[in-house]
Amino acid sequence: MTDTARPTKDRLILSAATLFRTRGYHGVGLADVLAEAKAPKGSLYHHFPNGKSDLAIAAATWASDEMLRLIAASFDGAETFGAGATTLCYKLAKLFDKTGWDTCPVAATLFEGPDNTKMRAHAAHIYDGWIAEVLDHAERLGLSDRDAQSKAEHLFVLIQGGWMLARARRNSDVLRRLAHQL
Amino acid sequence: MTDTARPTKDRLILSAATLFRTRGYHGVGLADVLAEAKAPKGSLYHHFPNGKSDLAIAAATWASDEMLRLIAASFDGAETFGAGATTLCYKLAKLFDKTGWDTCPVAATLFEGPDNTKMRAHAAHIYDGWIAEVLDHAERLGLSDRDAQSKAEHLFVLIQGGWMLARARRNSDVLRRLAHQL
Repeated sequence: MTDTARPTKDRLILSAATLFRTRGYHGVGLADVLAEAKAPKGSLYHHFPNGKSDLAIAAATWASDEMLRLIAASFDGAETFGAGATTLCYKLAKLFDKTGWDTCPVAATLFEGPDNTKMRAHAAHIYDGWIAEVLDHAERLGLSDRDAQSKAEHLFVLIQGGWMLARARRNSDVLRRLAHQL
Repeated sequence: MTDTARPTKDRLILSAATLFRTRGYHGVGLADVLAEAKAPKGSLYHHFPNGKSDLAIAAATWASDEMLRLIAASFDGAETFGAGATTLCYKLAKLFDKTGWDTCPVAATLFEGPDNTKMRAHAAHIYDGWIAEVLDHAERLGLSDRDAQSKAEHLFVLIQGGWMLARARRNSDVLRRLAHQL
């Protein structure tokens, strides 16, 4: 499938995700997204009536869905929580090496500042969704409720903080070391 | 000291730090900084010949110095590494409750994207400076070289990731729980 064979809506979301990731919410104009997606202006407002903020939420959701798939692929078939968590950290390190040192669109919408309650709430919803996904696996793998909750949140915190340090250093080694901390 | 009694250079740095923190690097224009700092344009280019990028580096350094003071205040007088780390997490939670849910200017310069090598390198320098500061305390408090290095990096990762989750949730509880993970 060539890039223009994707539906316009998908091209808009992917373009927005890429642009927000590299330049932050405020660094991107709708004209940039339209140019990157090779899409007409009318289509943007058709799919995203509130324009940029709707697009940011869609881009963050798209990136989050990718992360949920990565979590599922890491924990499915894992025999212990530690094994699943280790696989996830290694997969993220590999992703980092492949995609470079960008941030993710989830963080890019969050960094838009404290005024936009809707976006902040969406980021919280997304992050808690990742934690809930890990929690399901933790419980399936026999951890107690309390331990599962604590370990799922801990893994999230490690991944966020580790990704940030990896970005600053442009080196994914820290991501591979994370699993030892659980 | 009223705000205008500060030297112009300091007012420019503080204003830039506040604005980058809330709006991100791309969301801030030099005119915004000048207005916030109540400073003339000539003074900005006198102190920061490269304009916005110089200002971003100065703002990140200023924020980093605050963090180094917080680390020192937490570990000075601590009798164990765990006690110092716990104090630091509680102090950060208090700071979060006081200042709200902004990001820090260090992250704001980082989020400017992958193209600016100078800024990215400065962020890495700052982050490794925090880790080095914690490492000194870890060694003083009797941890082995390897354990000290691992724990200092782990604490950094926890704090970065925890702050991000606290921001999304607008709730500092996760920061207080971090110390249990070390």
